Amino acid sequence: MKQRPVIRHTGFMMLTNIPRLNALMKKGGFDAVIATCAENVTYLSGFWAMSQWVRRGPQAYALYVGSPEKSSLIINTSLLDLVPDQHPWMSDIRRYGYFQVDFDGTSTPNETYESQKRLFATSSSDSSVEALVAAMRDYGVERGTVAIDEMGITPQCMEQLQEALPNVRFVRSFSLFENVRAIKTLGEIEILRSAARITEGAIEAALSVAREGVTEREMMRKFNAYLAENDTAPVVGCLGFGNRSALSNVQPSDRALRDGDLIRFDVGGRYRHYRSDMSRGAALGEPGEKVRKYYSAVEKGVLRAYDVIRPGLKVSELFDEVVGTVQREGIPHYARSHVGHGIGVDGYDPPNIAASANMVLEEDMVICVETPYYEIGFAGLQVEDMIRVTRNGAESLMSLPTAIRIL
Amino acid sequence: MKQRPVIRHTGFMMLTNIPRLNALMKKGGFDAVIATCAENVTYLSGFWAMSQWVRRGPQAYALYVGSPEKSSLIINTSLLDLVPDQHPWMSDIRRYGYFQVDFDGTSTPNETYESQKRLFATSSSDSSVEALVAAMRDYGVERGTVAIDEMGITPQCMEQLQEALPNVRFVRSFSLFENVRAIKTLGEIEILRSAARITEGAIEAALSVAREGVTEREMMRKFNAYLAENDTAPVVGCLGFGNRSALSNVQPSDRALRDGDLIRFDVGGRYRHYRSDMSRGAALGEPGEKVRKYYSAVEKGVLRAYDVIRPGLKVSELFDEVVGTVQREGIPHYARSHVGHGIGVDGYDPPNIAASANMVLEEDMVICVETPYYEIGFAGLQVEDMIRVTRNGAESLMSLPTAIRIL
Repeated sequence: MKQRPVIRHTGFMMLTNIPRLNALMKKGGFDAVIATCAENVTYLSGFWAMSQWVRRGPQAYALYVGSPEKSSLIINTSLLDLVPDQHPWMSDIRRYGYFQVDFDGTSTPNETYESQKRLFATSSSDSSVEALVAAMRDYGVERGTVAIDEMGITPQCMEQLQEALPNVRFVRSFSLFENVRAIKTLGEIEILRSAARITEGAIEAALSVAREGVTEREMMRKFNAYLAENDTAPVVGCLGFGNRSALSNVQPSDRALRDGDLIRFDVGGRYRHYRSDMSRGAALGEPGEKVRKYYSAVEKGVLRAYDVIRPGLKVSELFDEVVGTVQREGIPHYARSHVGHGIGVDGYDPPNIAASANMVLEEDMVICVETPYYEIGFAGLQVEDMIRVTRNGAESLMSLPTAIRIL
Repeated sequence: MKQRPVIRHTGFMMLTNIPRLNALMKKGGFDAVIATCAENVTYLSGFWAMSQWVRRGPQAYALYVGSPEKSSLIINTSLLDLVPDQHPWMSDIRRYGYFQVDFDGTSTPNETYESQKRLFATSSSDSSVEALVAAMRDYGVERGTVAIDEMGITPQCMEQLQEALPNVRFVRSFSLFENVRAIKTLGEIEILRSAARITEGAIEAALSVAREGVTEREMMRKFNAYLAENDTAPVVGCLGFGNRSALSNVQPSDRALRDGDLIRFDVGGRYRHYRSDMSRGAALGEPGEKVRKYYSAVEKGVLRAYDVIRPGLKVSELFDEVVGTVQREGIPHYARSHVGHGIGVDGYDPPNIAASANMVLEEDMVICVETPYYEIGFAGLQVEDMIRVTRNGAESLMSLPTAIRIL
């Protein structure tokens, strides 16, 4: 089996798909790319710039000028302390703004101490844009075409950047980053595999408390606590009992579980910055004939995907195969806008598995294939698997059976 | 004591400070305001538009044209299912995009069923901007000056909006929303109180496993699991032992706790959309003289805040009082960019408690007062309290003692 290279720098893994980034930059005629939103900065630089993950507005950028040697991470001075633990592969770190730290000159210097001494000794720019412009100038990017992720930079900063570099043509390129991220590196696949395993464990933990009278909220607490115990942050927790399962984004309520109730999970977390997303159904006792029939239909839709997934398959064909299977197997009127999507540092990487998609599957895409059916007044039935596209077919990242679980 | 009115609509609480919003709109000469980022849409409309909370790009807007009756919530069709549970006070809900749901005509209609039937019967716009423009036209906003939160709308959508309404002058107004949010309603204060109590409980839970050999990661798992068990999402979890406590944003590692180690928490979560943020220190056994002295100094800085906080106090004076106290009480070289900030639906609402601040404290601000001291090679000492500014002074939202906890 072909092994995609894993680039390591000072012993730490680079998750970025550098060959694909280089190829897409060449194709687009870009002299440099700039990541600005939390997901893309982390993806491109290997650095988790906390403040931009938890708030709107804090600015952090990763600049890539065609090679790892011509790359720079621009962060607020208050985030320098995260550098020693995270070892971002981008070693040219520029800071902006004031943040006070002191140094204990009597202590025995260790790696962290030396790193902080070195970083705080660098000069600080007044603003994020000033630091970015300085880095671009240092790498010779004062004209030409630059792909910039428009999702994280504020409009004010974008204007300042264009004013400071009037000869640079900036092209909005969040979608370029999505396109790079669509094909996973081996390091990413390992993290996604772990994220999937942990999330499955959380579903098991949640189901372990299923009994008459337990509420959606109580069950979700078990789910989230399991994630917490496994270093995973809750992101999407849709959990509904009975006819509440028909609400697509159902958030846990005080609705108590009753005999015969369907339980629908559509859930995911974030583990080492990467997302999980999956769906399973269970029932407390016999759920009834319609639930069994419809669940079986949506399950077969997902299972059909394993038969057809291979590099080169048109995504629109995958859509048709999955939807057609659900229709044939029990829900003749089944209709969907999409039956899945890629997953990575974002919950919806390309491809979007839709009728109108014009991509083809490629090796090392990691995709979620899902077949939700929501019937208000009745129930929501859904199976969703995380699947890696391999050289010859498909590899499931799942271990939980797809069948409805009768409790 | 003056009671700020709590506006209720169909039995559900409105958290928005409508009188302040109206006053600031009048002052700024705005005919309408538009919230676009997750925090502001939730704040203004009462609706948690899931997709914009978990990803970059999904668009949701809340339009307010000077009164609750002239307000509209614009969301993707895929989010309509969240309406019945959340009962947003904005009852004019506009949708865009396609999302498939079916209806079981044989079921017994309940409130959720009727709500979904009604919402899905409305016509869907092709895009978020088209829906927003239609709502603006319906409320007569085709010219004049409109305050728009620039943090959530994509630049592409902003351009489309300006093109569709060329006679409207749009003014970037994320800061106006921050300014409205700075003064909390009673409903918000109750949620913040609960968020504080839960986070304190999580610190207690984390400390309950403190013993030689336990790692930062193991302790943080207990912290996060407690949050999960109490319906609170982890947001900021900085936890460091020994000299790692000097790293301001320290993320939990495999560093094991040793006798004499300081433990620094700077932590918070999100409960019912509202943030908590607090800091405490503990030590396993005797932490040593310097830690005791410095911790006492930063503690006294926060306690000083309670003596001086009252409506009308200049924020810059609060800064001077707190910093001066820490300096006098044991850290003569103490320096900080700020010693706290407001807290609400965002982790950093106004005021920023800095030397350069030009605001004054007002009744029903909820602020975090914090006095972190980071000395690389030694330790990080920090106390942070959540405090409500009352009519006559200050009310702590905390119950944990501020003193260093010796375990």
